[in-house]
Amino acid sequence: MHRVALRKPDGRPLWLYGREPLPAGVTAPGPGATPHAPNAHLRWHPLRGEWVAYATHRQQRTYLPPAEFNPLAPATDSAHPTEVPAGPWDVAVFRNLFPTLALTAHDPPELYLPTEPALGACEVVVFTQDSRASLGQLPLWHLELLIEVWADRYRELGREAAIKYVFPFENRGVEVGVTLHHPHGQIYAYPFVPPVPARELEQQRLHFEREGRGLLDEMIERELLEKTRVIYAGRRAAAFMPICARYPYEVWVAPIRAAASLADLEVEERRDLARALKTVLLKYDGLWKMPFPYILAIHQAPTDGAPHPEAHVHIELYPAYRMPGRLKYLAGSEVGAGVFTADTVPEDKVRELQAVAVDVDG
Amino acid sequence: MHRVALRKPDGRPLWLYGREPLPAGVTAPGPGATPHAPNAHLRWHPLRGEWVAYATHRQQRTYLPPAEFNPLAPATDSAHPTEVPAGPWDVAVFRNLFPTLALTAHDPPELYLPTEPALGACEVVVFTQDSRASLGQLPLWHLELLIEVWADRYRELGREAAIKYVFPFENRGVEVGVTLHHPHGQIYAYPFVPPVPARELEQQRLHFEREGRGLLDEMIERELLEKTRVIYAGRRAAAFMPICARYPYEVWVAPIRAAASLADLEVEERRDLARALKTVLLKYDGLWKMPFPYILAIHQAPTDGAPHPEAHVHIELYPAYRMPGRLKYLAGSEVGAGVFTADTVPEDKVRELQAVAVDVDG
Repeated sequence: MHRVALRKPDGRPLWLYGREPLPAGVTAPGPGATPHAPNAHLRWHPLRGEWVAYATHRQQRTYLPPAEFNPLAPATDSAHPTEVPAGPWDVAVFRNLFPTLALTAHDPPELYLPTEPALGACEVVVFTQDSRASLGQLPLWHLELLIEVWADRYRELGREAAIKYVFPFENRGVEVGVTLHHPHGQIYAYPFVPPVPARELEQQRLHFEREGRGLLDEMIERELLEKTRVIYAGRRAAAFMPICARYPYEVWVAPIRAAASLADLEVEERRDLARALKTVLLKYDGLWKMPFPYILAIHQAPTDGAPHPEAHVHIELYPAYRMPGRLKYLAGSEVGAGVFTADTVPEDKVRELQAVAVDVDG
Repeated sequence: MHRVALRKPDGRPLWLYGREPLPAGVTAPGPGATPHAPNAHLRWHPLRGEWVAYATHRQQRTYLPPAEFNPLAPATDSAHPTEVPAGPWDVAVFRNLFPTLALTAHDPPELYLPTEPALGACEVVVFTQDSRASLGQLPLWHLELLIEVWADRYRELGREAAIKYVFPFENRGVEVGVTLHHPHGQIYAYPFVPPVPARELEQQRLHFEREGRGLLDEMIERELLEKTRVIYAGRRAAAFMPICARYPYEVWVAPIRAAASLADLEVEERRDLARALKTVLLKYDGLWKMPFPYILAIHQAPTDGAPHPEAHVHIELYPAYRMPGRLKYLAGSEVGAGVFTADTVPEDKVRELQAVAVDVDG
């Protein structure tokens, strides 16, 4: 992996990543030269015991612009700067123009509940220069490179004292609220371990202390033995529909060994993880012969300085549909009580995905 | 409140509630006479430490039927039975034909993770006979009656040994997945305290032990003093946008006194709570002059036999929109990490609702 670190006219950093060395002399474009110093704050939700982030500048953000204003396409004309330059890069990362979290956050309002500056970072990860591609369509080497990029961001963001958790994700499809169609994901780097991974890590910790081995480690072993719910079984990585799937087409993808984060993967693990992920994404798109909307969430060890032998990096995929044309709504029971209700069992649904033939090397 | 308990041809119970006494001789209609014995199961999600419910018969449930097949309209023709009879009732409750939880659940599958029968109950609460009305349009006496009905269901369901938590809610609007447009809500009675109220109760318990008074109790006092975020301030009930709102138009409605459940309300509290709720719902619909989609969730004390001095019944309303035509999506940060990101602060948004004039007595 080759990397060039640049700075935009407004001061925001931009990183270009490539399989091949990148030429010198590339400059970082940007929408303006006003120094970027976003501010947002956190408020404590006392009833839920969690932080909520308030970033009022975000309401003005770009909303489904026409293709000629795609801010994630390489800039070809200096009169119309986008967020990324022309050049032979494969993946680009830059700080969000409208971030929810920023290291410049300061002076939160004084309220009768605890408030904090919304410290952290929000980054945009441009998966490819090709606006019409998708994550699953990228060649294997490109997916491997992307995993290296995520690992690089994990390491670099994790070094910031204020950042305790690095969370890469992708929202795919208008059904999950996507505002830009160019293939991209995001990274939110939080100043605390967020509730969902915190809960998972706590369960993993209890299991690790009780059993002397990882919870996900053990689940993957069981799944690979039973085979029923397995979608991809490689030498170093696996993909399966979890036995406790909350979404009808939920899939988890993980290295078989309990690597704590993407930065802990060995070359062969990264290679097999890319193959596992691509297999799942191609099956999703092949299922109904349409781009399959989903939320992709990567859960890994916090960057809080503590040891995390319980952590096991994994990718959770939450698809938006439960049948063709019928969304899985998160309604009263899911949102108001926290209890997911499924119409289907994973042993049935997985067969639909298992039956989709895909050409991962194509 | 007057109540008649009936039984449908398939054995499911039906309750009719009225302000006036109900006549004798009403019989309960139903779609068939096959004894109703639904089965579903729970699986333990080890990574999240929570139960997921699997009810495979639900995938065949009624989906937006044309008006002539509205199963919640009073049956006028014995050849076309609906779920509720003709007659002078005001609110009707019956057990869901496709329940996620049922007291008949049995023999869960044996898996390598814990499973349990999905014991409990799922009830449909028909708010009115008028298919074109809405919760907010009901007269105050009718809303008061509905609160009494919710309290009656809380008491009756709570007496079942298997049921630990009674959760009334309403999903309103196709935006939150509603499949039947007749004004109605649901009650899920769970065999455990679900994660969201469990988390709230834990925070309330810690606060109660530390401060010697209720958390919500104290918040309501502060909100009524500051007035900034208040939408309704009555003698016995209040409605306000919470200082830590996660949804742009989120509102909480509660009795001022820390009543543990709807069944603990005094007459005047119930009356004022109805007025507070109606005020909010009319403001919602008045804001953009359109029916405002939302999830309405009622959180109250568990029915697990333990004392709950920390509990304070309240209604949380989660609206679907953040601007006209723009949904608040729960995407990567919210769903994958559990961190809500807001574009707006409640101090700004509440002014929009405060400015909507409503005629609650009309």
